[in-house]
Order: sequence, then C-alpha cells, then structure tokens
Amino acid sequence: MKLKVDLVKNDLGELRLIFISKEIAKELDLIPGGKARVIAGSKETTVYVAIDGDAGRNVRMSESLYEKLGRPREVDVKPHLIPPSVSFIRKKLGGGKLSKDEIYSIIKDVVSGVLTDVEIAAFVSAQLSVGMDINEMVSLTKAMVETGNVLRFEKPVYDIHSIGGVPGNSKVSIVAVPTVASAEVFIPKTSSRAITSPAGTADTMEVFAPVEFTADEVLELAQKVNGFIIWGGTLGLAPADDILIRVEYQLRVDPVSQMIASILSKKLSMGVQNLLIDIPVGREAKVESLEGARNLASLFTQVSDGLGLSLRVGITYGGQPIGYAVGPALEAREALETLMGGGPTSVKEKATALAGLVLEMAGVAPKGAGKKTAKEILLSGKSLETFRKIVEAMGGNPDVKPDDIEVGKHKVEVRAPMDGYVTGVYNRPITTIARAAGAPIDKGAGVLLHVKRGHKVKEGDVLMEIYSNSAPRLQEAQRLVSVLKPITIEGMLLETYPEYM
Amino acid sequence: MKLKVDLVKNDLGELRLIFISKEIAKELDLIPGGKARVIAGSKETTVYVAIDGDAGRNVRMSESLYEKLGRPREVDVKPHLIPPSVSFIRKKLGGGKLSKDEIYSIIKDVVSGVLTDVEIAAFVSAQLSVGMDINEMVSLTKAMVETGNVLRFEKPVYDIHSIGGVPGNSKVSIVAVPTVASAEVFIPKTSSRAITSPAGTADTMEVFAPVEFTADEVLELAQKVNGFIIWGGTLGLAPADDILIRVEYQLRVDPVSQMIASILSKKLSMGVQNLLIDIPVGREAKVESLEGARNLASLFTQVSDGLGLSLRVGITYGGQPIGYAVGPALEAREALETLMGGGPTSVKEKATALAGLVLEMAGVAPKGAGKKTAKEILLSGKSLETFRKIVEAMGGNPDVKPDDIEVGKHKVEVRAPMDGYVTGVYNRPITTIARAAGAPIDKGAGVLLHVKRGHKVKEGDVLMEIYSNSAPRLQEAQRLVSVLKPITIEGMLLETYPEYM
Repeated sequence: MKLKVDLVKNDLGELRLIFISKEIAKELDLIPGGKARVIAGSKETTVYVAIDGDAGRNVRMSESLYEKLGRPREVDVKPHLIPPSVSFIRKKLGGGKLSKDEIYSIIKDVVSGVLTDVEIAAFVSAQLSVGMDINEMVSLTKAMVETGNVLRFEKPVYDIHSIGGVPGNSKVSIVAVPTVASAEVFIPKTSSRAITSPAGTADTMEVFAPVEFTADEVLELAQKVNGFIIWGGTLGLAPADDILIRVEYQLRVDPVSQMIASILSKKLSMGVQNLLIDIPVGREAKVESLEGARNLASLFTQVSDGLGLSLRVGITYGGQPIGYAVGPALEAREALETLMGGGPTSVKEKATALAGLVLEMAGVAPKGAGKKTAKEILLSGKSLETFRKIVEAMGGNPDVKPDDIEVGKHKVEVRAPMDGYVTGVYNRPITTIARAAGAPIDKGAGVLLHVKRGHKVKEGDVLMEIYSNSAPRLQEAQRLVSVLKPITIEGMLLETYPEYM
Repeated sequence: MKLKVDLVKNDLGELRLIFISKEIAKELDLIPGGKARVIAGSKETTVYVAIDGDAGRNVRMSESLYEKLGRPREVDVKPHLIPPSVSFIRKKLGGGKLSKDEIYSIIKDVVSGVLTDVEIAAFVSAQLSVGMDINEMVSLTKAMVETGNVLRFEKPVYDIHSIGGVPGNSKVSIVAVPTVASAEVFIPKTSSRAITSPAGTADTMEVFAPVEFTADEVLELAQKVNGFIIWGGTLGLAPADDILIRVEYQLRVDPVSQMIASILSKKLSMGVQNLLIDIPVGREAKVESLEGARNLASLFTQVSDGLGLSLRVGITYGGQPIGYAVGPALEAREALETLMGGGPTSVKEKATALAGLVLEMAGVAPKGAGKKTAKEILLSGKSLETFRKIVEAMGGNPDVKPDDIEVGKHKVEVRAPMDGYVTGVYNRPITTIARAAGAPIDKGAGVLLHVKRGHKVKEGDVLMEIYSNSAPRLQEAQRLVSVLKPITIEGMLLETYPEYM
C-alpha cells in the first residue's frame, strides 16, 4: 500500500519504526510491535510498527529512517516476509557451509536493513559457535566490499592495521604512518573510532586535525601527501561492518571470521594491495597466547591469498598498555614526543618495527633491514616533518607542540601503597578506568602511567595519574582503581584478587 | 534518575520504548535508539530510548510497558548495563556448559525484560548450534517453571501433549481428553493457540466453549469435571516460553532443548506428574524419521527423569494430515462426529491409542490393554457424555451438534485432473493453504480433504474443499493450490515438482 510520508520529531537513532493508524495496520494485517517492509524505489527496509491515532492515512517516521530511504515522498508498506537470507543464517546455525551467493544475500540484507538485529544476532552467533572456513571468509569479505563504496588510487596502496585490544596502542600508527610515507610509500590509513577501547586511532588523530573527509576530499589529500590517518566512518566503506559491530557490541562477542572479514573488507575498499596486520599478544589482549596469534596469522594469510591481497603479520607484545599514555589527548602528546625524538622506547620500537615491515614489503628496505631504515627515518626528524605536512593537509596546526595539547583539567594521582616491584599493569582495568574518566568522548580524559611491569617503586611513589574534564567522572574512575587494581606490586594482592594473578 | 510516568497513545505491542527529552537523555548519557534500564520497585526492564521534545522532565511510555512495570507513578531510568546473563549466553555460544545458576539467571532476565531480543536470539542460536546436555535441559525446564505461576491440584494429574507439526492434529485431544476423564483420571489439559499451524488445540476447543480462565477459575473447574481443555496463555505458566517462542518464530528455528524445556515447563507448572508425549513422524512433520523420533523420545525421557516426572512417549504416524479436516471449526466438527461414534478411523485410532496409554499409566487398564479400554469408553458414548459435561462446565453449549458448527461461508472445490491413486497429501502445503484461507483467526476457514494417500480417484472427483469467510483469502488459497500441489496423483507430477517426490 502506497502511503504518504510524514515526519515525527522523535529522534529514534538506529531504531527503525513507523507510526501508522489502527485502520491502516488492519488493512495491511500488521500488528503493533510487529514488523513490516517499507519500500521506496530500489530501497527496502524492515521496520517495527507502532500505532498512532494521528497518523491518518500517512506513514510517520523519524528523520533518520526517512534519510535512509532516500527522502521519499511516499513509500510502499507491506507485510513482513521472512527473507531467504534467514534460511541461510539457519543453515549456518545448523553447522552448514554457506556458498558465495548465500553469504552475499545475507550481507546485502544486512546493509539494506531487510534483516533485523534479531536475525543479525543469529548470524553473528553462528559465526561464533559454528565458525566459517577460509572460502566462507573470502566470500564474506568480498560481499562486504561489494555492498559498499570502493576508492581507487593511482599509486600502489600500503597499510598497517592493528587488531587492537591493548590500551595506548592508537599512538603507534601516528608514528608509523608518517615514517612509511617519508620513504615515498603511499599509506592512506583509514582507522576507526573507539568502540570498547579508550581511544581509536581516529580519536587520537583528531586531536591534531579533522579526520572526517568525503571520498573526493580523500582523493585530493592523496595528491598532496603520501599518507594520512582519517576516520573510515564517513566514506561508506563496507557499511555492513558498522551494523554487524553494533550487534556484536550488544552481545560483547567478536567472532574471528567476522573480525577478519571486517578488517580486510575495509582495507580492500580503500584499494589496499599490501597490508601489514599487527597482532598484539598477551594477557587481557584480544589474543592471549603466541599459539593463538600464530593461528590467527595463518587465517589472515589464507583469506588474503583467496582475495589476492599481499599480507604480512607482525606479532607484537600486548600484555600491558603500549607506552605510558592512554586516552586521545594523552596518546597524541606521547606520539608527538616520540616523533620529536623523545617518547618511550616501547613506542619507538613498536612503531619502527611495523613501519619497517611495510618498507620491506614495498622493496624500500631489504628483508630484515626494514626496522633499521625506519628508525633512521624517525631519528633523522623526517617522520616528524612528514607528520607536520600530513596534519597541515588534513586541516590541523602543523606547528603543534606537545604542551599545546590540552589534557583533562582535573587530575588524581594513584600512589604505591608499599615498596616493591610492579608485577602487572593490566589492560582491562586501565581501559575501564580511562573510559570511566570520559575517554574517548572527552579527549582530555585518560590514564598516564608512571610505571610499567618490572619497575621498582617505593611506598608513596606515583603509579599513575587519571585525567578528566568532569569531576564526577574522575571520582568514579578513582573509585574503580580500588575495585579493579590496575597495577599490582609484588606480594600485594595475590590472594585477594586471584582473577588478576 | 526518578522520572514521572506519562502515557503515549501509541500502541507499541511488545516493543519496549521510552520517550524522553534531549536534556534528560544527555544527563543520563543515553543515546536515541540506544538502550536504558527502567526500574519500578522490584521490576526492571531494558528499553530502547527515543527523544521526544514534548516529554519535559517526564518519561513517556506505552500503556503495555506501563502495565508490565506494574503501573508505577514514577520510575528510575538508568544507563543500560550489560547484565551478567549475557556472559553466560556467550559461554554457551563458545561451546561451554551452563550451570543451573547461569541458566536461571538467563531465564530470569528473559522474563523480566532485562534481556533484549538480540540477546535472546543469541541464546536460542546457541541452543541450536551448540546444543544442551540433559542436565542443562533439566535446569532450563526448572528455571522456566520457577519464573512463572504454578498451579496445584488435589488429585494426581495426567496429561497428553503432542509436539505438533501435522495439520488436523488438534482434534485428537478433543476426543482423547474426555475419554481419559471418563475413567476418573484427572486430565486438566492446557494447550496452545496456533503459531505456525492452522489450528492449535485451544483454537479448536474454543469453537465449543471459552478457553480463557484465571487460575482460580481453573481450580473451580477441576472441582466440577475430571478434565478440560483450556488455553494456557492466560495463566502465567512458564512465561519465558512465550518470549522465547516469539524470537524463535522470527528466526524460524525450534531448537530441541528449548522445545523439550518449553513443553515440560508448561506441564510442570500445571502440576502434571504423569505425561504422555505424542511424537508424530513422517515427511514434513517436525520429526521425519523413526530414528529421529526415538532419539527425541530418549531425550524427553532422560530430562523427565531428572525432573521427577513420569513420562511415556507414543510415536505416531504423521506423514499426512490427521483425519480429513484442517482448521478450527472443521476440526471441531470432525472431533464431535468422532465422539458421536462416526468420524474417520484414523482419528478414532489415534485418540484411543493415546488415551489408552494414559489409562495404562494411571493403572486403570493393564499394560497393553489401554487402547481396548479407551475404545470401549469411546464407543459406549461415555466420552461424548463427559465431553458435553466439560463443554458445559467451560461455559459452552453442551448440546451442540456437528451441523451447529459454522464453517466458512465461501467454499471452493479442488478436483482430480486425471484418474489414478493418490500418492501424497502433504502437510506443509495443506497448512499453508488453510492459513491463507484465514485459519486459525477465521475459525471457519480451513481445508476439508476428501481423499488420503492411497485412495483411488477418477478425473473430476473432489480431492478437497477449501473454506473461508473471506472471498479474497479464498482466492489466494486457491491460487496456492496450483503452486504448492497439496495432493498428488500417481503419474502426475513426478518431474515438474521433484521437491514433493
């Protein structure tokens, strides 16, 4: 039934809901709280139905749904039919293998909104409990690329991507990317904003410059500089990913097959032909054992082979935060210090190791000599120079100094309750505390560590500082310190907190 | 934050949504389309958030959510926290075993509304792909009982339950229950309304009498008669079931562990101590092979042992519709004819076989002689007499005659296109056609078969009639006949419709 569209002023976010009169619902055999199909030209989406006495013979919807449907004057509302993709999801749940066409059908329906979150949750669940083989992961990646925008550059495209999970990691790319670009290797890095971490690379880069660009602006940027770090969210690359991540986040799951396809699809959409994947390994990282990292590296390699993508994997240490700073502004400051020749050794080492592997892939450095080359570039000041050019091209202040970067105006210190050696600085508590303080939304919020594992401390020494622009948030973060014990000192907590031992 | 409740006139059905102002959302750190917790006294539920400029400092909700929360004057709205039960669902998805407490936590959160459909979908998916062992199924059943109302009767309680899936089956209980009750065996049968079938037992019984009673009325009913057939939906028995079924229906899945727990929890909630399960086996039934039926019977038996429930399983033939009538009124008429001494042999045989097994369980008939006893009761007219008493006690007309039962006022006949033997009458097409005609909502709608598998027909003989109170629905049902080929005749369709051969 064709109905005129009427807007409601309610902001419903991602919730797809239409309001129709009782009479129209009856004519269409729709029930309140049930589902319907809304069709506007070639766009079709599944929505929930609410009854609104004032809707008359119109269909009322939120601005965001109206936008999603391409701002139609009228839409066709029909009873909901179970789409065929649901039977493919069921097949996977039952342990079956999915064909390329079946996977494509699922992803297409994810992107268009034909599948609801309930059905997507079943697809994600099936990937976790049943899993996917290499062919399925290749098809999943391709389907995610093909249902979104694809950018093409004129030069060969290199990139670095960390699977994440370790706080403080966002600063590594900010050092590595300009180092690679300094060697005339093109590295147009798209990155994500934090979902569960205190700072995504995009959040940290945004401290220096705007990170949201249109596809045309990105192509322009590529004319000016050999690398940049932008947010991938505005480019419409592999849009299935954002929807799948939203459901994964609700379930707090991250199936390996979906993780691999998500990463590779975003990269393929950016025209990447040569990719370095960083897998941090350690307690409370995404991958906790070297064996697990090797398995994951092997999966990445096999899927990339199926996609014709040249890929290398670097397995790095991720058993505690990278460097000392956690949170966008604090990490931005630490990255800039590192580019300027200071900064923590661990950041310098990790950034040049990764950049070096890319230089080897690009043939700029011979195999085994990449890291040395990268370090020379960094120490010569060339990385800093390139970084300043990138910041300028992206619209930021190229002359920024570490002290220009504002951190949270409120601060508390956490001190050592006793003498001893630091036995652990734990990823999850640090992440939770930095987020409680307001990161990543509050760019100045986060944690600045003063110690790392193995350091010797005296009673009363500062172990870490917590920053925030909100006093109540800072108070909550401080409270979490005593609950979560983010840093332990030898002999201190072995019995009371077995979960961290 | 405590907020006054304000009602919206929108009917949102099962969709839990609150409307708050932008300011309140900001204060509470809530985003439109995201989730929040609403707490009213001991009741807590998870809701979606919508922004409504007119909400002021109130929280607006639909009548049904207000009802669910116990009609509170004000509620506490808080940011959504991931409940611990989500981690148990994740554990199951990862292949783990769930403890009694973990399962209880999931079911409690399903019932209270703390878990959303997305999380419930993951739980259902995990049951399908990972499965549950006997201990888990026992815990699941108990948790479903304990989170709902429980009725207790003074006499030992017997019951019959068919796992369903075969059209025309609802009439069997209507013959079997009064037969059991005639032998002074107490059988207070609760039954369901159709979800995917053309008629649930409750839908068919409702043709004779009201089927919705309160718990007190049910206890009263039990004083008057030794058996009855009512709808379980109004009694608050195992309320988790309705919610889980709603999600299963969206995914079109029916995991064995959930099916067993659903059936047994409803029965335990009615105080059933002795249960006969009917498993129909055949093409296009829920269970297609005898081996599958035996496996399912074994699972039912093991779970019942764990629950202290005495259980027998009858495996019956379900490869084509039971009897000739499909749809509430048509089945009601056929059931009454059977009680009156007529009716199809297959209905008489199945009903007395099942009733006989219950009589054996109750010690009324020696083992192996139950069916003979049941048949004597039926043929003596005692079943009919008891049925009329039951109908009267439930508020229906005890003197109803088959011709009093109104069937659809529109009718079409489907005729044989050629001479030959009927090679198949197929469950799924018959179900689809009867539902397209309007069953179960339109009580008079359905299919009346004239032939069953193996019958000999001549060209032009009537194969089946379709009834409906709606002319357009009847037309659609008729169209489906040519698409779905519900009845095949030897030599007729082998090549064009291989899927039915």
